[in-house]
Amino acid sequence: MGEFDLIARYFQRPVRRAVLGVGDDCALLAPAPGMQLAVSSDMLVEGRHFLPTVQPEALGHKALAVNLSDLAACGAQPLAFTLALALPRVDEDWLAGFSRGLLALADAHGCELVGGDTTAGPLNICITVFGEVPAGQALLRSGARAGDDIYVSGTVGDARLALEAFRGTLSLPAEVFAAARQRMERPTPRVALGLALRGVASSAIDVSDGLLGDLMHVLRASGVGARVEASVAPELIAASAYVSSARGQFDPETLATCVFAGGDDYELAFTAPPAARDAVQAAARDAGTRATRIGVVEAQPGLRLVDGAGHALDLRRLHGFDHFA
Amino acid sequence: MGEFDLIARYFQRPVRRAVLGVGDDCALLAPAPGMQLAVSSDMLVEGRHFLPTVQPEALGHKALAVNLSDLAACGAQPLAFTLALALPRVDEDWLAGFSRGLLALADAHGCELVGGDTTAGPLNICITVFGEVPAGQALLRSGARAGDDIYVSGTVGDARLALEAFRGTLSLPAEVFAAARQRMERPTPRVALGLALRGVASSAIDVSDGLLGDLMHVLRASGVGARVEASVAPELIAASAYVSSARGQFDPETLATCVFAGGDDYELAFTAPPAARDAVQAAARDAGTRATRIGVVEAQPGLRLVDGAGHALDLRRLHGFDHFA
Repeated sequence: MGEFDLIARYFQRPVRRAVLGVGDDCALLAPAPGMQLAVSSDMLVEGRHFLPTVQPEALGHKALAVNLSDLAACGAQPLAFTLALALPRVDEDWLAGFSRGLLALADAHGCELVGGDTTAGPLNICITVFGEVPAGQALLRSGARAGDDIYVSGTVGDARLALEAFRGTLSLPAEVFAAARQRMERPTPRVALGLALRGVASSAIDVSDGLLGDLMHVLRASGVGARVEASVAPELIAASAYVSSARGQFDPETLATCVFAGGDDYELAFTAPPAARDAVQAAARDAGTRATRIGVVEAQPGLRLVDGAGHALDLRRLHGFDHFA
Repeated sequence: MGEFDLIARYFQRPVRRAVLGVGDDCALLAPAPGMQLAVSSDMLVEGRHFLPTVQPEALGHKALAVNLSDLAACGAQPLAFTLALALPRVDEDWLAGFSRGLLALADAHGCELVGGDTTAGPLNICITVFGEVPAGQALLRSGARAGDDIYVSGTVGDARLALEAFRGTLSLPAEVFAAARQRMERPTPRVALGLALRGVASSAIDVSDGLLGDLMHVLRASGVGARVEASVAPELIAASAYVSSARGQFDPETLATCVFAGGDDYELAFTAPPAARDAVQAAARDAGTRATRIGVVEAQPGLRLVDGAGHALDLRRLHGFDHFA
């Protein structure tokens, strides 16, 4: 099957919102008047962003999910995306599964595939996503102010838990592993929450590399620091009951590593002034998720993870995941 | 050097036209009122789109050039781009050269790097480019009509000539090889010509996979066919004097393969009604290139390459380059 047949069979569909979709030199988008276009690009590489064992359908889902998550962090409404795909070979089963997972999530968010590229090469998936946001209303990393509360949506740490189980550094009961694996392989981009947080949150970022590492980007961009409560860890992880149980026997450091430094959660970390607490909870409720207050923004730069007695814990074993570190 | 340091050192620059550039979850673009956004994405893989011997600076140039070429084919004004980069290792010399070539071409076209991604992995360069075009004025593949003239800009075939020399299937004098190699490694996107052809050309495409193969996309999208004159081959290749000389001794088939099926030229193939002949030549002159009339659009589907006597030549040895063929 040639490149053009491949595109036609698995990825080309009638144009809906775009002016012009797959099949010309460019796609054409017409943003609504007064709207800015939010753009983000993520590249996924086997062994780095996904395991060779992942199902193609889950991979298709995840490849778009991580990009939609960037739109969510800006409070942008998904509009369209391009897909560039390097494939070692044409495997129709793989392509059918991949495109099914990809387009199902795209449809769920009204986000249209408008173009891209396919080539032979080591497996590589590069998606660029476009969203709309009213001019001046995008959630930025730079808006956090001293005194703001710090929140994280949903649950974090479970994707790392699954990764550690895959790596063999810990073992999990089958049902705990299955749930954690879902979190790793089929993350839920918090698009609805991002939209609901426009005008409420003072800053936001999506948690891709690890909660504290990503939060540090917000703090640096905003010129502030933060204190985060270590005691929230057990309530932030979805596998809370297990890790806290005698059966789980998680030492605090492993738990903190998963929750605070585990990547691949694709939740939103965000800040909002204390006056907005009710609005934050309402936004989370409307978006079908939760928002947990985990700390406070402080004027003093740096990030302090403190225990119940206010003592700072050593962050060195919880550092974020840097792709070239 | 970590991912974030790498981005800051080689790719982050002050924002100019974009609302928000590198360093947040998304970049923000604000298209001017009445403008549509043209979007294209190209992925370059070593051994497939460039040779391991290519200089990083030339590769940076080419990676953006092939994307700007897609904007040119739509008649869009370059605005911004994202860069996703998988690197086997952090090689500062390579990065310095690559970013120099990339950003020099970006600056020449006022096209701003607004975001992207970096990761470890087999070398892969994925650029998504954004341009502006007044609503309804984009050059499309679907506008060719029977009776239109067919043109190609600049020179074609030299990139393939260089590739064949690299492959060892032919040998070239040093100065001929150097010039052909420039065409292969540092293509000139015909952005100015694409802009000048708005309202003049009836359809356009950029020549990336081979002149006739790419022309076929136009014909299919337009529901028409074409007759192309084989006799134009010697005047279309920049190495014309050499290939026509006793020293060159090019058989007609090798020449036709380079000119009609050679990829990587990044010229524009386009159609325009006969009444627009003067306007086409004026557009080419203004854009600093030339436009050669190579044939005519016909109602009968299919593409006929004919010799001086009007006999159809066998296209089977001149087919376009399909990435999975």
